[in-house]
Amino acid sequence: MKARVHITLKSGVLDPQGKAIGHALSSLGFTGIGEVRQGKVIEIELAESDPATARASIEAMCTKLLANIVIENYTIAIDA
Amino acid sequence: MKARVHITLKSGVLDPQGKAIGHALSSLGFTGIGEVRQGKVIEIELAESDPATARASIEAMCTKLLANIVIENYTIAIDA
Repeated sequence: MKARVHITLKSGVLDPQGKAIGHALSSLGFTGIGEVRQGKVIEIELAESDPATARASIEAMCTKLLANIVIENYTIAIDA
Repeated sequence: MKARVHITLKSGVLDPQGKAIGHALSSLGFTGIGEVRQGKVIEIELAESDPATARASIEAMCTKLLANIVIENYTIAIDA
């Protein structure tokens, strides 16, 4: 079973990396670009076969290691 | 219109960041963890309202700036 965790900065938290990407795109000539935000995606292979247990385990990993819950949000997607 | 670009390392390309996450999870006591891969997600707000044009524009951004197509794959999702 494979889990995919999306980690994004909470709205309101400054995202300098996203801003840099936005500026770079503008200077390359792309127009009509609004806000750009960069986040992370982490794909984890799990031996666990029960989706509910897998999700609980990933949830624990997110709060303990993967995400900084003060400034980041995370969403978990489990692929069968 | 909002676009979301996922950028992941091609399979076969060494992912030391993913490996480090996998080791850290194991040392925190999580078991049954297989391969871990880390990628990027970039969210871009576009003024463009036509999905096809938006996708073409994002495609150009990916090849020119966002992804290193030698070692990375990208997928584009357009939200209405």
